[in-house]
Amino acid sequence: MRTIFYISDGTALTAEAFGRAMLSMFPLKVEHKTLAFIDTESKAQQAVAKINAAHEATGERPVIFHTFVSLELKRVITSCTGSCYDFLDYFVAPLSRELGMDAQPKTNRTHGIEENGVRDSYDSRIEAVNYSLANDDGSNISDYDQADIILLGVSRTGKTPTSLYLALHYGIKAANYPLTEDDNMENLQLPKVLKQQRHKIFGLTLEPQRLHEIRSKRREGSRYASLQQCRFELQEVEKMYRREAIPFLDSTRFSVEEIAAKILAETNLERHHY
Amino acid sequence: MRTIFYISDGTALTAEAFGRAMLSMFPLKVEHKTLAFIDTESKAQQAVAKINAAHEATGERPVIFHTFVSLELKRVITSCTGSCYDFLDYFVAPLSRELGMDAQPKTNRTHGIEENGVRDSYDSRIEAVNYSLANDDGSNISDYDQADIILLGVSRTGKTPTSLYLALHYGIKAANYPLTEDDNMENLQLPKVLKQQRHKIFGLTLEPQRLHEIRSKRREGSRYASLQQCRFELQEVEKMYRREAIPFLDSTRFSVEEIAAKILAETNLERHHY
Repeated sequence: MRTIFYISDGTALTAEAFGRAMLSMFPLKVEHKTLAFIDTESKAQQAVAKINAAHEATGERPVIFHTFVSLELKRVITSCTGSCYDFLDYFVAPLSRELGMDAQPKTNRTHGIEENGVRDSYDSRIEAVNYSLANDDGSNISDYDQADIILLGVSRTGKTPTSLYLALHYGIKAANYPLTEDDNMENLQLPKVLKQQRHKIFGLTLEPQRLHEIRSKRREGSRYASLQQCRFELQEVEKMYRREAIPFLDSTRFSVEEIAAKILAETNLERHHY
Repeated sequence: MRTIFYISDGTALTAEAFGRAMLSMFPLKVEHKTLAFIDTESKAQQAVAKINAAHEATGERPVIFHTFVSLELKRVITSCTGSCYDFLDYFVAPLSRELGMDAQPKTNRTHGIEENGVRDSYDSRIEAVNYSLANDDGSNISDYDQADIILLGVSRTGKTPTSLYLALHYGIKAANYPLTEDDNMENLQLPKVLKQQRHKIFGLTLEPQRLHEIRSKRREGSRYASLQQCRFELQEVEKMYRREAIPFLDSTRFSVEEIAAKILAETNLERHHY
């Protein structure tokens, strides 16, 4: 099996994103290894030793995705026996010509606390996380005026992970409100507290079979988890979404990253962080 | 101001990561626009119209970072008047030679719900998020056996955002435990419930001034937020970390991404997701 190394003098998050995107095009089983904060020559030499050892152990050349600010350290890394890819390197010159300015590489600028010298954007993400936590699961409805978006859905349709992702990744204040049996499922209406916030609401739904599986992990054999109950709740909630013209998404086949990106694409939500 | 477009027939997360890393090398104020799920020719033509309109409005050529699986759609996008960068394109051929196989591009493989055909890795991330939420702020200490890591620190030192990030991004079950006045700060000991879990503990700390600022936003003028109290608590907790040989990190200058990456680099925590 190939060993894939993601190496950087910073977090290596960029090297990981780059490598993951490249590898997604090849149907290949691999072993991943991240070596982050390789910021001294001796650490770089240890990294090279690890790469070469993986090469010997597996008999296959490791593949290395790396992003270094320091040319010295980059030189050490590329002296390994693996196959090295550095996407920054290739694109810097053309982008520099296009922008009419020289590159000024600096460690940790991509995932650091300051974005273009501004700390506010980072703080707004942390504030959004705190907001989303405090407004998870229908708590604190008095704060809905501050929400950027309110996710609506029956229990276990992915509201919480999605709202936390929106907050952490984009700095979006995402509240979420669960529809439960208290909301009278037989004649489901948009809860009163949400009526004034209608423009902020986004609905989530799932296929009944998937919801049944997820709920069964929680309370196996219960009425709550039964396929019949799941089917009923989802049917009622989707009927309400349509009647109230609430945009909604069936998240069965989507990851939290995809759900979040689809919500952003379908609404006019402004990101507070890029 | 330059307009930067991130465009893809999927989430555009890869295009964003690529563009952000490239732009981090240039001290430049820009406006960001993401156009995700551009998966039909008419959407691609609308995207081109937006790019060309931004060009006319600003008088500066927009910069486009794009990743498309469909060659047709890619051709439409690159017909715009902006400056286009596609990193996948350039690296596919050499990586294909190295791996000895042809690329098999497929939309949404990078950020989709299946990772190399396996859904388990995705589900383990959602499970980790649920775990971290249930074990936030010292609740549920009976579940600590299942924790991959337990973050320790005084109030407002970044435990919660860090544990949620570890869960969402890496599928790591991260509990967190706050040290409060109940723990007798004058003679701070490692709480009893944590003694058996010592090998899982990682401490967070901050500079007193920063903690004072953060707490002041919450309870301005309180003893809790005073610089004196912050200084005292941090001093006591760091003393305990040293005495108990608990690894710790001063997170003052780091983003949640950096804190998480540093924790992974300093511990032997295994990621459940790449």
